[in-house]
Amino acid sequence: MSKLEPQRYKLTVAYDGSAYAGWQIQPNAMTVQEALQTALKSLVMHAVQIHGSGRTDAGVHANGQVVHFDLVKDFAPDSLRRALNAVLPADIRILASAYAAPDFHARKSAVAKTYVYQIWNARVLLPTRRLYFAHVKRELNLAAMSEAASYLIGKHDFAAFSANPSRRVETTVRTISRLDITRDGEAIMFWVRGDGFLYKMVRSISGWLIRVGQGECLPERTLSILEASTRTAEVPTAAPQGLFLDNVEYG
Amino acid sequence: MSKLEPQRYKLTVAYDGSAYAGWQIQPNAMTVQEALQTALKSLVMHAVQIHGSGRTDAGVHANGQVVHFDLVKDFAPDSLRRALNAVLPADIRILASAYAAPDFHARKSAVAKTYVYQIWNARVLLPTRRLYFAHVKRELNLAAMSEAASYLIGKHDFAAFSANPSRRVETTVRTISRLDITRDGEAIMFWVRGDGFLYKMVRSISGWLIRVGQGECLPERTLSILEASTRTAEVPTAAPQGLFLDNVEYG
Repeated sequence: MSKLEPQRYKLTVAYDGSAYAGWQIQPNAMTVQEALQTALKSLVMHAVQIHGSGRTDAGVHANGQVVHFDLVKDFAPDSLRRALNAVLPADIRILASAYAAPDFHARKSAVAKTYVYQIWNARVLLPTRRLYFAHVKRELNLAAMSEAASYLIGKHDFAAFSANPSRRVETTVRTISRLDITRDGEAIMFWVRGDGFLYKMVRSISGWLIRVGQGECLPERTLSILEASTRTAEVPTAAPQGLFLDNVEYG
Repeated sequence: MSKLEPQRYKLTVAYDGSAYAGWQIQPNAMTVQEALQTALKSLVMHAVQIHGSGRTDAGVHANGQVVHFDLVKDFAPDSLRRALNAVLPADIRILASAYAAPDFHARKSAVAKTYVYQIWNARVLLPTRRLYFAHVKRELNLAAMSEAASYLIGKHDFAAFSANPSRRVETTVRTISRLDITRDGEAIMFWVRGDGFLYKMVRSISGWLIRVGQGECLPERTLSILEASTRTAEVPTAAPQGLFLDNVEYG
């Protein structure tokens, strides 16, 4: 590799979003992107722009966010991983590091993303789960939620399950390829895999499934809400701390 | 119930110990006992002494600590539970509340306690697990740890697995009735049930099992360490954040 040709790197990053104002850099608040860029700058001694696969909101976590950036100086990927982990705060960890092709782009090259939304369904939320689960006291009806979820799988206009996007998007049509509901004791998880997601789409879907699970709305209502293609007050946005960006897939 | 006879209450309490200097009240640091007594005082308008089943160290968590105290005014147990949860910080929750007999004592009446020690056994500690797991990078040998654990089950002098007790104890003989090791992906758990525990006994046992699991010591060495009945530098004390007081049993 010539020293004049930059080398692109791909990192897989996990974070606890509790202490951050989300992914994207903003004034007057610490973000995950800024923490990563600060750590990288301390190693390479100059500012480096880091591109994520997408933004996560304040309080949202990641098990496998993917980012890319370019460096002119060559670092062995695993040395870079260890050096970054040595300077990053404990609530951000680099899980994997690799060279990437010059045309690899963390957001544009992604073909699918999976989110998991975690609910603690019990009378009392265990203190050691409070940062990573939404609390729902009323017993959730898994069969009703699964029926509602079945209507959301496939290619649909998800405008009704998106919160006032601040940026214009070309289309609000997305494809959900998986929407599974699993249970492990008091923990209920929604696994949502899709080709792309609108602003607050997973939390809107989760908020709706919780309403259905609590018996407040019938599962079939999902169809007419989807068809209306506009957000209604019927669809709440579930709390951020239950949401994890689980993984990002590339072709 | 006469208003002059106090009523004894038994509460089951879960807490995230991350922010506390342990269970027991001390000057210049917030403890779980103080937080509970402050919450109770705000409800009954006078100071009440709360007795726990035992102390937990700074950073140690509880899924089911048990406490007792007396109130002169009668409260329905579940109203008391809800009222306390309304004033307690989110990292302490009352899971259950019940009337107790006048001779019930959270510590003296206990017949068994179970602790769980949690280890994250992977190259990188996931940020969302960092407050509740000890991190061990090297792959642990479960068979070796299970063999070492088998020597600890039963009635033994556990002086070698206790850290300089500040209080004199009559005997350092205790009975461990269960020491199971379970695995769930990268999480490894030690389940330790006994009739009583010496100061830092579970963390010392956990520290030793981790050494054996990493191949630093042979499982059979456990026997000679037990027999020596004195603490050696060979037995490390595992980190507090991996430890949970799981439950307390009464006759």
